[in-house]
Amino acid sequence: MNRPVVLISLESPHSFWQLSAAHERALSAAFPDVEFRTATEEAVPRQLAEAHIYFGWRFEPSWLSGAPRLRWIASPAAGTDHLPVAEARSVGVALTRSFGFHGRPMAEHAMGMVLGFSRGLFMSRLAQRNRTWWKDDLADEFFDLAGATMTIVGCGSIGEHVARVARAFGMYVIGVRRTPPVAAEGGITWMHTSAVHQAVAVADVVVDLLPATRGTDRFFDRDLFTAFKSRSLFLNLGRAATVDQRALLAALNTGHLRGAALDVSDPRPLPARHPLRLHPRVLLTPKSSTLSRTYMDDAVAFFADNLRRYLAGQPLNGLAEVPDARSPLVGG
Amino acid sequence: MNRPVVLISLESPHSFWQLSAAHERALSAAFPDVEFRTATEEAVPRQLAEAHIYFGWRFEPSWLSGAPRLRWIASPAAGTDHLPVAEARSVGVALTRSFGFHGRPMAEHAMGMVLGFSRGLFMSRLAQRNRTWWKDDLADEFFDLAGATMTIVGCGSIGEHVARVARAFGMYVIGVRRTPPVAAEGGITWMHTSAVHQAVAVADVVVDLLPATRGTDRFFDRDLFTAFKSRSLFLNLGRAATVDQRALLAALNTGHLRGAALDVSDPRPLPARHPLRLHPRVLLTPKSSTLSRTYMDDAVAFFADNLRRYLAGQPLNGLAEVPDARSPLVGG
Repeated sequence: MNRPVVLISLESPHSFWQLSAAHERALSAAFPDVEFRTATEEAVPRQLAEAHIYFGWRFEPSWLSGAPRLRWIASPAAGTDHLPVAEARSVGVALTRSFGFHGRPMAEHAMGMVLGFSRGLFMSRLAQRNRTWWKDDLADEFFDLAGATMTIVGCGSIGEHVARVARAFGMYVIGVRRTPPVAAEGGITWMHTSAVHQAVAVADVVVDLLPATRGTDRFFDRDLFTAFKSRSLFLNLGRAATVDQRALLAALNTGHLRGAALDVSDPRPLPARHPLRLHPRVLLTPKSSTLSRTYMDDAVAFFADNLRRYLAGQPLNGLAEVPDARSPLVGG
Repeated sequence: MNRPVVLISLESPHSFWQLSAAHERALSAAFPDVEFRTATEEAVPRQLAEAHIYFGWRFEPSWLSGAPRLRWIASPAAGTDHLPVAEARSVGVALTRSFGFHGRPMAEHAMGMVLGFSRGLFMSRLAQRNRTWWKDDLADEFFDLAGATMTIVGCGSIGEHVARVARAFGMYVIGVRRTPPVAAEGGITWMHTSAVHQAVAVADVVVDLLPATRGTDRFFDRDLFTAFKSRSLFLNLGRAATVDQRALLAALNTGHLRGAALDVSDPRPLPARHPLRLHPRVLLTPKSSTLSRTYMDDAVAFFADNLRRYLAGQPLNGLAEVPDARSPLVGG
């Protein structure tokens, strides 16, 4: 039997999204019976002819026809919206996403968003350029995290990371998911998705980490925003499709919502004069919540673990769901 | 013997800096043998004639001459720069500041400042209005808190609050003080002030919590900023006098410092076109790091504890130091 061939194409302008020489050496040392080849994105279609496994950021549907030996497409990304999940499945090729290491940077991102509002830092950053003194306005606006409540909707492993740091600030955390744990876990008060209206009604901060599925399309709609506690803060670090942006904007404009911080939007990027871009109480980040300098270290470790499973004939972790259910960002 | 008279003047446009009716009731219930009187600021000079104790935000030096029975001035503020410490001492009147409850909001403030830079949130807040997409710039700029090092200079009880939340994000914390604990405490690596150059050389984030004393005047000078690790972040939540602002600006302009977040400045406020106001990598907040909705609850509890000591003839907590040493913000 020939050695399995793994074709790797992990190019990026940013070093932490690239495969390094050290990563290559580590993989070769760990898997002496596997042949690792790296390819520029341009060379991938040609080199796929001999590959059994592909590990890379991109995969075009058309590449499948020139890859007769391919059995598995492994992506270092958390989401698979940009990958040919259905096409791969139809020709018997497994497709996996990566998970388990996005929670840490996303928790930093989420707490930065919360504190930027709660301590009036975003307001200060604008005011320092054109106002003499703004302490009185800030004294009206700020709120204490200690004793405040955060409700995390779609609270899977990423949400548990966010909950852990929120609790370090003395916040109470409510986790909402379809299958809540029976016992209290991680200091989180668990609630079922069917009780989400009650869960947001007591929250000072609501964090949307819902995956994009048919069931979560515009989950945050006018009805749900109306159920929010007055002057609460809304964060979306999940999927744009889970939010009705017009309903969000309306809730901001009436003052019912204190503010919103969005790492995702529809479309992405938003048009230049879109009201969410110009809103004084909205923070937009460029889908940057998972940025981490150790990203590729973690993604390679995840891949190596899965490669061990593949070679042992065990089921792979992170198999992408069929497109109708779209790519889940979080479990639960 | 007459009942001791406590004159209280705690007016503010903000409810959390006011004495509430509930506070008054609680004090009267706890101290049935004390007479509590409240006064508007205007009425204080006249009412001081019969007061033994004064509890309030302001105290003018000229008020002392009309207060023959006064023994103690209690301030709910952490600092006493604005109070007549020397004048009170010269006529045998004790003057106390308040402490022990500023650490929690200051820790929230400090971490918000750090995360605003580390996750590129301040940059995003500006970019969202005039740029299509800025993820590549942000990917160059961000840094992970997990595994990064924070050095806290003047690390007393407030610094220990900051350290606790920083460690929840996986940061290493070095505490610098004149009298470091002998054993490791609070997960902090302790260093003596004489080793401050080494302590800042390994830090990704340096937090200035130094009190203003003769020994700390412009403690952060060109020499010390030069010793900082390249691309590090500087926070000042202590006293403006501890920083040479021209040296800070120079370190920012060469790019040696990634950024600075300042809750204090000299003068306060800074002039409209001051370069620190306009600098793209500087965040200014209006001395707002101690803002807390529970401020007066905590300050009244601190006062009540001290009043118990006063009545029992025990030494008061928070006695202000003589002006030459100026008001310490933190111990150690």
